[in-house]
Amino acid sequence: MTSSSSFPSGRVCLVGAGPGDPDLLTLKALKALQSADAVVHDMLVSAAILALANPHAALIPAGKRAGQPSARQEEINALIVTLARQGKYVVRLKSGDPGIFGRAGEEIAACRAANVPVSVVAGVTAASAAAASLGVSLTHRDHARRLQFLTGHSREGVLPADIDWAGIADPHATTVLYMGARTLGDFAQRAMAAGLPGAVPAVAIENASRPDQRVWRAALADMRHVLEHAAPQGPVVVLVGYALGE
Amino acid sequence: MTSSSSFPSGRVCLVGAGPGDPDLLTLKALKALQSADAVVHDMLVSAAILALANPHAALIPAGKRAGQPSARQEEINALIVTLARQGKYVVRLKSGDPGIFGRAGEEIAACRAANVPVSVVAGVTAASAAAASLGVSLTHRDHARRLQFLTGHSREGVLPADIDWAGIADPHATTVLYMGARTLGDFAQRAMAAGLPGAVPAVAIENASRPDQRVWRAALADMRHVLEHAAPQGPVVVLVGYALGE
Repeated sequence: MTSSSSFPSGRVCLVGAGPGDPDLLTLKALKALQSADAVVHDMLVSAAILALANPHAALIPAGKRAGQPSARQEEINALIVTLARQGKYVVRLKSGDPGIFGRAGEEIAACRAANVPVSVVAGVTAASAAAASLGVSLTHRDHARRLQFLTGHSREGVLPADIDWAGIADPHATTVLYMGARTLGDFAQRAMAAGLPGAVPAVAIENASRPDQRVWRAALADMRHVLEHAAPQGPVVVLVGYALGE
Repeated sequence: MTSSSSFPSGRVCLVGAGPGDPDLLTLKALKALQSADAVVHDMLVSAAILALANPHAALIPAGKRAGQPSARQEEINALIVTLARQGKYVVRLKSGDPGIFGRAGEEIAACRAANVPVSVVAGVTAASAAAASLGVSLTHRDHARRLQFLTGHSREGVLPADIDWAGIADPHATTVLYMGARTLGDFAQRAMAAGLPGAVPAVAIENASRPDQRVWRAALADMRHVLEHAAPQGPVVVLVGYALGE
């Protein structure tokens, strides 16, 4: 009774909820939500999306919030494993795409270590939603050979030490800073120190794709002050590069 | 009668079809397809997705194919503008996400120049679908500070000259080469010349998310020979980085 066969139907599916607009859910994500026994969701996932879940499913908030301490990752890992071992179909609902700054790696590893079946449903990532809202390509042929994402999320409000700043400073790339409202100043200072011109266009988007979306445009060198003044409370992505000048 | 008000209802929507699995369409993409008068679609978009379009819509193939010459971009631009000027709701259906290596910039610019209303619906990009199929995170905390995409698509079978190879060679990044089957050898050679170890794990995925998906795993230095032997005909993304070793 202690083998994995004692909970044959329990499993975990990491599902990307997309950037916020319920219409940017995939059909696969919607089907998963509708058949879930439990939905363990990021705090960032909107009520409009949670309303689409199986009405008999338990809705359990956990994880990523903008600018606030999150539930510890170990606790989330333990929670999804425990629920699956109770025989439940657990949907772990994450904003954006689980594979891009979603801490999916730890949760997949925890499920595998516990012999709980785990799968992943890809979602629309925030950078794609932001570009669509702006009506721009992130990889415009004239301006961007390379597209790169990094996360500004850290409890200390500073970026990791081992970023390749020369790669960030490449003027032929478009760079997207996820969860970057608080670290944009640090990002801009280091990117400019590595050679990226302060005049490069930047666009910050709060709550991309949601009704309360806000957009700010500035040169990279000025964006810090723009965001300090605006003080966004929702999740922010900052897009940087000459492709944004189109 | 020559002003924009002479075709008040015509408009263009660039829609991301996602990587191929119809269930990875967004609800917004499905709604657009169902209400389209004309669907101008990449050759890569599957029949199962086209079957979801308004049965009265004209289905017009155009654009991106794997390893074959494509319709000229100027012709596609002219086509969508002409259809919109006839008063049609034109869905320009692109594989993946329109903002990531989708030539969306040229089509948006053409619509704006012609005073045709244009909007964009974001989609699931191939890198996200590939990571979900593999059950990995592209940004595993222990291995990847930065995620970067570049395209290997070129008629000449070689990569653009002005890629920042030092940025590609950063061992703390995960790199995804889109449309990269033919240029992987060139990519690997230059990345290794810039310092990326040949032992870095790489995964190539053909037709990610589709029933005919195929996956190959090798060290970066060996992937060229693996792909030459396998000779994939569908679109291939190659994921490179220590995060793939998880």
